[in-house]
Amino acid sequence: MAQEIKKNKWTVPISKMAQNTFNPIRSIVDTMKLEPHPDKPMIALSIGDPTVFGNLPMSEEIENAVIKCIKQRKYNGYAPSVGFDFARQAIAEYVSTPSSQVEAKDVILTSGCSGALELCISCLAEPGHNILIPKPGFSLYKTLAESLGIEVRSYNLLPEHSWEIDLQHLEKLIDDETAAVIVCNPSNPCGSAYRKEHLLAILETVARHKKPVIADEIYEHFVFNGQAYHSLASLSTVVPILACSGLTKRFLVPGWRLGWIVINDRNYAFTEVRNGLLKLSQRILGPNTLVQAALPEILKLTPQSFYTETLEYLETNAQLFYKYLSKIQGLMPIMPRGAMYMMIGIDMRHFPEFTSDIEFTQLLVTEQSVFCLPASCFQYPNYFRVVLTIPTEKVQEACDRIKEFCAQHYHFPADPFVQSVKGHKNEQINNTSYVNGLCPNGHYENGKSNGIEVNGLHDAEK
Amino acid sequence: MAQEIKKNKWTVPISKMAQNTFNPIRSIVDTMKLEPHPDKPMIALSIGDPTVFGNLPMSEEIENAVIKCIKQRKYNGYAPSVGFDFARQAIAEYVSTPSSQVEAKDVILTSGCSGALELCISCLAEPGHNILIPKPGFSLYKTLAESLGIEVRSYNLLPEHSWEIDLQHLEKLIDDETAAVIVCNPSNPCGSAYRKEHLLAILETVARHKKPVIADEIYEHFVFNGQAYHSLASLSTVVPILACSGLTKRFLVPGWRLGWIVINDRNYAFTEVRNGLLKLSQRILGPNTLVQAALPEILKLTPQSFYTETLEYLETNAQLFYKYLSKIQGLMPIMPRGAMYMMIGIDMRHFPEFTSDIEFTQLLVTEQSVFCLPASCFQYPNYFRVVLTIPTEKVQEACDRIKEFCAQHYHFPADPFVQSVKGHKNEQINNTSYVNGLCPNGHYENGKSNGIEVNGLHDAEK
Repeated sequence: MAQEIKKNKWTVPISKMAQNTFNPIRSIVDTMKLEPHPDKPMIALSIGDPTVFGNLPMSEEIENAVIKCIKQRKYNGYAPSVGFDFARQAIAEYVSTPSSQVEAKDVILTSGCSGALELCISCLAEPGHNILIPKPGFSLYKTLAESLGIEVRSYNLLPEHSWEIDLQHLEKLIDDETAAVIVCNPSNPCGSAYRKEHLLAILETVARHKKPVIADEIYEHFVFNGQAYHSLASLSTVVPILACSGLTKRFLVPGWRLGWIVINDRNYAFTEVRNGLLKLSQRILGPNTLVQAALPEILKLTPQSFYTETLEYLETNAQLFYKYLSKIQGLMPIMPRGAMYMMIGIDMRHFPEFTSDIEFTQLLVTEQSVFCLPASCFQYPNYFRVVLTIPTEKVQEACDRIKEFCAQHYHFPADPFVQSVKGHKNEQINNTSYVNGLCPNGHYENGKSNGIEVNGLHDAEK
Repeated sequence: MAQEIKKNKWTVPISKMAQNTFNPIRSIVDTMKLEPHPDKPMIALSIGDPTVFGNLPMSEEIENAVIKCIKQRKYNGYAPSVGFDFARQAIAEYVSTPSSQVEAKDVILTSGCSGALELCISCLAEPGHNILIPKPGFSLYKTLAESLGIEVRSYNLLPEHSWEIDLQHLEKLIDDETAAVIVCNPSNPCGSAYRKEHLLAILETVARHKKPVIADEIYEHFVFNGQAYHSLASLSTVVPILACSGLTKRFLVPGWRLGWIVINDRNYAFTEVRNGLLKLSQRILGPNTLVQAALPEILKLTPQSFYTETLEYLETNAQLFYKYLSKIQGLMPIMPRGAMYMMIGIDMRHFPEFTSDIEFTQLLVTEQSVFCLPASCFQYPNYFRVVLTIPTEKVQEACDRIKEFCAQHYHFPADPFVQSVKGHKNEQINNTSYVNGLCPNGHYENGKSNGIEVNGLHDAEK
């Protein structure tokens, strides 16, 4: 038999693109030993899918809108590759602001927001170019770019400044071959939601270098109480911006794969890009037409209360997570301002038995059946990410288990030679002095204890 | 103002991929002047979308299956990038034949069949490689490949042999850099449906060169009375085949964008390919989950009568078209054996005022409000394609108008210096001798007048 197989050997090689398509989350998670403790039911804080627990159902209006479109039997055929005109018009109305008006012709419907990002990256960049991406950041940017042979350069986000962009660092990375800067706001995995002043500073920086922006705004409007959401496009009349979003998060239907690109052109900078996006859209032919057809009703009829309740739910969870986790020695939760996630730093100096956040989170599964995503998945070691979408009643249980885990593995005093969280390498601390605004237990010194605002910076400082 | 625009000039260039993405149909059709005659309502025979006329509705079972999945509210989240396991399993059962068994792990769900083709091409080929495609053929192969910098080489189909592949020609095109051979059966635009013997000959040819096949079988089972459908994979235990299909055509829901790849591996030839496809699938994350979830019911509950009635409808139209068009001097319809299309040769020697099928079909719109797609869209000049999905009651009217148009523009005797249909360049004919099996009016001599079988070859000849 082996002989026969050998005789018939016929091996089909694969392209560099297939070889170079690399999903960091998968390649990390798939190699982890994720065997939960047999006596404890699993609590998955890892999955960025708001639907998995069933606690955040979609609105009835969405359901009815799609069923209506199916029954009308008018929307089974091909749509134009950029989407039905009336659906694009609905998006244009939905995203337009007084300072940033767009029309149907400025909208391209795509297969989810990942489809939008892929179109934008493949339109703007090619081998030899580079694109700038946030670190920590959503891994798909890197996956998409590198599969196309495009270099990615990661600019730092600053955890101690509520994950604002280190603009000096970003600026140093820009060169003639920089094709675009990707800005994610509100952010996965950080849960950041940038203030207007910071967004203006970002825009000023890219404008100085005349670089277009790909704005990943899939978490648009996901900002907690006291914050305001600003789309990047609403704040600039100069910077050309491709804004990517979709129904996925706000409407809690990620599987429906309905995303869009809004072409925020400025002074005809995007004339070629508009044409390029149109051409690229013809390769696959856009998203499901039933959902496209339902867009006008989905956007018009979904009640404000649906959005508000979702946000309140997330914020309640964020506050609970923050309240519990900030009391755990060795952990440094960063209170999010929006989106669906919280990042938690691990002061590795106090956990010398682990060489990485991957080992830390792996043993947390083994011993406590709690799965948090190691932030190495986002190119950000020594942190882990929790999702805020889990049922509120599970938050305390999850945190209690994390607390027990940390207590069992915490070493005090810290090993001075073990790397701490990002940017604080091998710094020896003692019990009374604070390092870089970190308390010995890792909390930011000026973080408010109510869990609303722990960013190391008051507004007055900016 | 112009000054200000100039001052702010900020032009964003686009990638070679965007520049090189080229849809021949769009670039031809968009440059045509398509102004119908004001006194005649438009009859569009151009659109390969079976839903546009409303005469071929989807089955009630499909509608109910999707509505049920929406109401269950269990399928709004992300599916695995290759699709839900149970949906892949349903496809595996649907496509397995006694001689070709596949499992769920062999199925990848994609965003329409175009998504399937894109994954396959980008997995198997890269710049420096070439892929072989049929001529005439569906334009997307070329669009996808060339946008990725992959060379396409077109092998000839033989209209006088019911569009079978010229295997000698195909074989001449194969070299070390040939990454895959795309075979489309039943075919768009030809309406061919290959007999088993021909499919075996194709397989024998590619096996000799150890080249994998991408089988575009989106029109699977679309064969007319007296024909049998064979998938390529069912006929070989040696050739590794990626078979692409979807709900699009058979279930009459092209807009739903539910396609699939079936990995027909042979002796582990596709080990790398399987992994490559999996990785590439993670770039965009698969098709709409509501339709995925409905797949098991769609495939199980759609009654046989639905398929049969659709096919009977198409065949009735094919017969009518053939009956009427074969009487028109200067036209050479080729009776299809399946799919949804018919190709009609134009004996350009009799229409010296037109330099191309594009001019011919354009004036047909202007004068008669009948739009047929010029086959230059399929790299096949001097033919045009009609769709068989139009309401039967419109076929005669359409043909009458085409007849009037041809009568008005027909020149007799033929201009000996004008090119005729493909492969019959500048051949002078007289009234009594037949050229290459073509009657003076363009009919194949041995075509049966009942319109069922006009392929220039009897089965006994093969």
